[in-house]
Amino acid sequence: MTQHKKENQTLVMGLHCVHEVVSHQPERVIKVLISNMETELSARKASLLEMIKKKKLEIEKVSMKTLDRTCDSKSHQGFVALLKKRETLSLSSFLKNEKETSFVLALDSIYDPQNLGAILRAAECFGVDLVIWSKNRGASLTPVVAKTSSAASEIIPICLVSNLSTAIQEFSKKGYFVAAAHLDAKSESLFEFKYPEKTLLILGSEGEGVRPLLQKQADTLLQVPMYGRIDSLNVSQAAALFLAHWKRQQSL
Amino acid sequence: MTQHKKENQTLVMGLHCVHEVVSHQPERVIKVLISNMETELSARKASLLEMIKKKKLEIEKVSMKTLDRTCDSKSHQGFVALLKKRETLSLSSFLKNEKETSFVLALDSIYDPQNLGAILRAAECFGVDLVIWSKNRGASLTPVVAKTSSAASEIIPICLVSNLSTAIQEFSKKGYFVAAAHLDAKSESLFEFKYPEKTLLILGSEGEGVRPLLQKQADTLLQVPMYGRIDSLNVSQAAALFLAHWKRQQSL
Repeated sequence: MTQHKKENQTLVMGLHCVHEVVSHQPERVIKVLISNMETELSARKASLLEMIKKKKLEIEKVSMKTLDRTCDSKSHQGFVALLKKRETLSLSSFLKNEKETSFVLALDSIYDPQNLGAILRAAECFGVDLVIWSKNRGASLTPVVAKTSSAASEIIPICLVSNLSTAIQEFSKKGYFVAAAHLDAKSESLFEFKYPEKTLLILGSEGEGVRPLLQKQADTLLQVPMYGRIDSLNVSQAAALFLAHWKRQQSL
Repeated sequence: MTQHKKENQTLVMGLHCVHEVVSHQPERVIKVLISNMETELSARKASLLEMIKKKKLEIEKVSMKTLDRTCDSKSHQGFVALLKKRETLSLSSFLKNEKETSFVLALDSIYDPQNLGAILRAAECFGVDLVIWSKNRGASLTPVVAKTSSAASEIIPICLVSNLSTAIQEFSKKGYFVAAAHLDAKSESLFEFKYPEKTLLILGSEGEGVRPLLQKQADTLLQVPMYGRIDSLNVSQAAALFLAHWKRQQSL
């Protein structure tokens, strides 16, 4: 029994998440762990189980406690997939193969796994080319991140760097326009902004926003105009707005 | 000591949330509970404490354990405000006083407190006139909801009804255009849609979407165009997009 993942393995949990990886990346699935407590499966669980069997993936029945412990979470809904660890990109390989139009999302100090997951989900939904953050200033890719992201964390191109500021410099040198999402008197409205063909957008943490060092590297500061008494959206909602606006301009 | 709230009282927790109610609705604050473990306050905590003292609000120092138990959560950051319970609106009083342009957000089966909180936050940020949901088909207004909403749950007009379908009928009769956010082949793109002056928008749960009964009551189904392999955003991100698009049309 190998409920506990090895160094080069990763886990995703929950019906939706397991469904996504089984659909899109079955070749990465080592085995699917299913609760042995399931006697009568719901329609959704039954259909997922059928799909797993159809793809001839290995299934192992284990106790709920084992699943809890394996995931370090109770949000697995009785379904957990053990995967070969995804490959992240190196900055140089991404920049070598970049396209003429490219959108890179840079995350500064997003430590909350729920926020990170929701941002990655939006990044996948709108077709961002790369998400990049610093290993030391952000959440790790945990099962909670995978679940909140609807498994986007296992699908989209990600680059983990040691220094985000240095990485942003590399993008600037390559002709990327650098925008930072930051509420500030001098920030321009997102809705007045026309995204250049190559853009890197920096999103900061909710409490602090984008760090001053990175703000200085930005060619412009952008904000979503607010109309209430509370001064800002959740960072994952802001991400969805920034990305939807970009994608909409792209499609016009 | 009254750490445990009474029937007509409610709690909000966390620095940001306590700051919002102390700023915007100090008259509702009965007392602020602060952890007695705080010896050296951070700048943010010190400035909040100063504001609380300036407004002459009652302060009670209690143990972290008491705060944990009072909030049924550990996310209070040592600051909890005990408030007079907010008033919710009755449907008839809202409809009697409605304006010529009005936007109502109807929530169908949003049970996740984090999602509800983030939706309420976006509703406040974009100036929605009313948020309505069924008492029996949605989360209650807990401290977690208040915190995720940045205290928007304590500020914005809310109406809790016994039957959402019947309530939507009332709005239809009053000339509201009813739109339902629903991913479906026949749904039109949000970005092609022009919001009528009086609109009620229904948002459904992530798993199921808007219930068929309510879909039938809608004059149109709307969706945010998606470009990735994952088929939908988090419901609170979708809410932010629907509301931002409405507000932007309003401001043009």
